[in-house]
Amino acid sequence: MELLGTRRVYEGNVVNLRVDTLRGEGGRPHDVEVVEHSEAVVVIVRPRPHEMVLVRQYRHPLGAMSWEAVAGGMDPGETPIEAAARELREETGYRAHSITRLWSAYSAPGFCSELLHFCVVDGYDIGVAEPDVNEEIEVGIFSLDALWEKIRNDELPDVKTQVAVLWALTGRR
Amino acid sequence: MELLGTRRVYEGNVVNLRVDTLRGEGGRPHDVEVVEHSEAVVVIVRPRPHEMVLVRQYRHPLGAMSWEAVAGGMDPGETPIEAAARELREETGYRAHSITRLWSAYSAPGFCSELLHFCVVDGYDIGVAEPDVNEEIEVGIFSLDALWEKIRNDELPDVKTQVAVLWALTGRR
Repeated sequence: MELLGTRRVYEGNVVNLRVDTLRGEGGRPHDVEVVEHSEAVVVIVRPRPHEMVLVRQYRHPLGAMSWEAVAGGMDPGETPIEAAARELREETGYRAHSITRLWSAYSAPGFCSELLHFCVVDGYDIGVAEPDVNEEIEVGIFSLDALWEKIRNDELPDVKTQVAVLWALTGRR
Repeated sequence: MELLGTRRVYEGNVVNLRVDTLRGEGGRPHDVEVVEHSEAVVVIVRPRPHEMVLVRQYRHPLGAMSWEAVAGGMDPGETPIEAAARELREETGYRAHSITRLWSAYSAPGFCSELLHFCVVDGYDIGVAEPDVNEEIEVGIFSLDALWEKIRNDELPDVKTQVAVLWALTGRR
């Protein structure tokens, strides 16, 4: 692919938008929209092997409250492990003893640069949550079987949380 | 949440962008960026129970080729089943005998409206692929164990494909 030009459309708080003009092997120029988003972390917490911690918050694109794995964007200069520890502390108050990055995944590789780093927590102390302004977050502990039923019944419609739950259900590491 | 105003920033081919101004219970107005994207389908094809079909294509936001589950946006008026049958035909040439929607998931609920409908194919005939202009697509059949190793080694960094593979590895339906 040859990049013929770039038009920067929007610079925002959470996302930027640019339109790249490309020429492929076919020869005809075409535009591709790219949503730019910082890297992010997904933090998998299992109080017991058959349980998982989720947080509930308002998600404006859905117009609804949503139970999801702990997650958030990485700040400049942070490693995934540092971001995971911070997001876990802010959203739940938990202080992790040990965090391991499992693997990474693009949330929407067709049009968005956001790369999610899946991390798992081994051991934690419970403290007081420190949510951002505009964040009101509820913490819940669910059994994996209950979360599987929620996925099948369209009651857990968040793809990163589905990865976390399905991974736990495989029993693999 | 009270919606105080909306600013439409961009209307594109694949995405639109709007900025909504909200007032929560805290009282202070704040802006939320929303990337609008059509609903989409993810098509899970398992030639044998321990195998899965993926397709390889150039993904410009990654600047790289990417192996992923068959997927694509729904056209206006299409059901998820119709879109899954069409995407499967276009990207692989396979004609599905039966398609079942499993569940749905938002790809990035914090900032994007895209809803993915996971679908599974039961039986198919093999025909000739019908890719879009600007699409060059390779089809591959992988064992689930090989795909699990790819996930763990950061060689399959697409979240929808990870859901498909991990679901298959659970053995649940």
